[in-house]
Amino acid sequence: MLKKKGIVTVISGFSGAGKGTIVKHLMADHHNIYNLSISATSRSPRVGEEEGVDYFFKTKEEFEQMIERGELLEYTLFNGNYYGTPKSYVEEITASGKDVILEIEINGALQVKKFFPQALLLFVTPPDAITLRDRLVGRGTEAIDVIEQRLALSYEQSFNMSEYDYLIVNDDLNSCVDLVHSIISAEKYRCFRNTDNIKEMQNELKIFSKGELK
Amino acid sequence: MLKKKGIVTVISGFSGAGKGTIVKHLMADHHNIYNLSISATSRSPRVGEEEGVDYFFKTKEEFEQMIERGELLEYTLFNGNYYGTPKSYVEEITASGKDVILEIEINGALQVKKFFPQALLLFVTPPDAITLRDRLVGRGTEAIDVIEQRLALSYEQSFNMSEYDYLIVNDDLNSCVDLVHSIISAEKYRCFRNTDNIKEMQNELKIFSKGELK
Repeated sequence: MLKKKGIVTVISGFSGAGKGTIVKHLMADHHNIYNLSISATSRSPRVGEEEGVDYFFKTKEEFEQMIERGELLEYTLFNGNYYGTPKSYVEEITASGKDVILEIEINGALQVKKFFPQALLLFVTPPDAITLRDRLVGRGTEAIDVIEQRLALSYEQSFNMSEYDYLIVNDDLNSCVDLVHSIISAEKYRCFRNTDNIKEMQNELKIFSKGELK
Repeated sequence: MLKKKGIVTVISGFSGAGKGTIVKHLMADHHNIYNLSISATSRSPRVGEEEGVDYFFKTKEEFEQMIERGELLEYTLFNGNYYGTPKSYVEEITASGKDVILEIEINGALQVKKFFPQALLLFVTPPDAITLRDRLVGRGTEAIDVIEQRLALSYEQSFNMSEYDYLIVNDDLNSCVDLVHSIISAEKYRCFRNTDNIKEMQNELKIFSKGELK
């Protein structure tokens, strides 16, 4: 009993929360369990980028056809280029019993949940707003008014937090990575992910309840 | 951030699934985290049983008053005696941030979920129906027709499995106890259990988004 199905886990959260680093370490620690989803994009490959490894590269027309045919779990237009998650790739992996990790923005995460209600949504946040501001400032890459825009966006995004399944407070990287792994591991035992096993038990008990014991 | 609230975990399942043993080992391994709920009963104390340790002993009239006043999370009448879970005791423990474990029958579990929708319901089952039958037979305490009645009851109860949150397949005691502990630990990070923390983050971000940074 207990055939484990692959779980689609979406990791997103505030910009500056450290979700990229968490995903990188999660993949390094458990590469035999998790598969990172590969995005499709209409932007041109950069030097060293490989088709089917870094991205599935598409023309703008091909990407728009994918949108029309409903082949994307979520997509966004950024700086004139499309980025999105192909449904087929995610379905192939989960069908084989392996888990998929998606690291995407909040809008995308909520789009995925509509497609796959069983997807697991993790929201990564720093312990408090001061830490979030300090991390953005500490990067030293953005002007103060850009940082303020990001904090204003984070405030708007904070109203989506309750639509997520779990809240991951990133105060220590290693414990965060372990927490994400234990949450996904525990989720495999949810009853709604084990309906086949429940039905199997019901069928077996039906036979025994008919007095086949004697 | 992340004040952890106490969780009410209800462990139930088929008769013969081994839930009592799991609870016993869970309490032994993590007595600093979990508190076993103490039932109220209208039956007389047996030799060595202590008030407030083994049970809260009540007269039949007292128990019926508790029912009328809605002071019980769940109750049942068994062999002419009432057994039930006092709401106040569970609420006191969880308010102090500690977790409560309830080991009760399936009807009781579903009553608790109505009272406390945030309660965590774990269903313990053997790996398959043959194992369940063999465990009941192996006890050697019941006649074959009693075992058949229990299996027939298990068949009926199997239709409640999907109302539970998690399915615990008891094939190995130690891994089962660890699994129950990791499920409860992971559940503490659910967004709906952290609404206070989410609100706090929103309030902090609201201040920063008003340009208090400069």
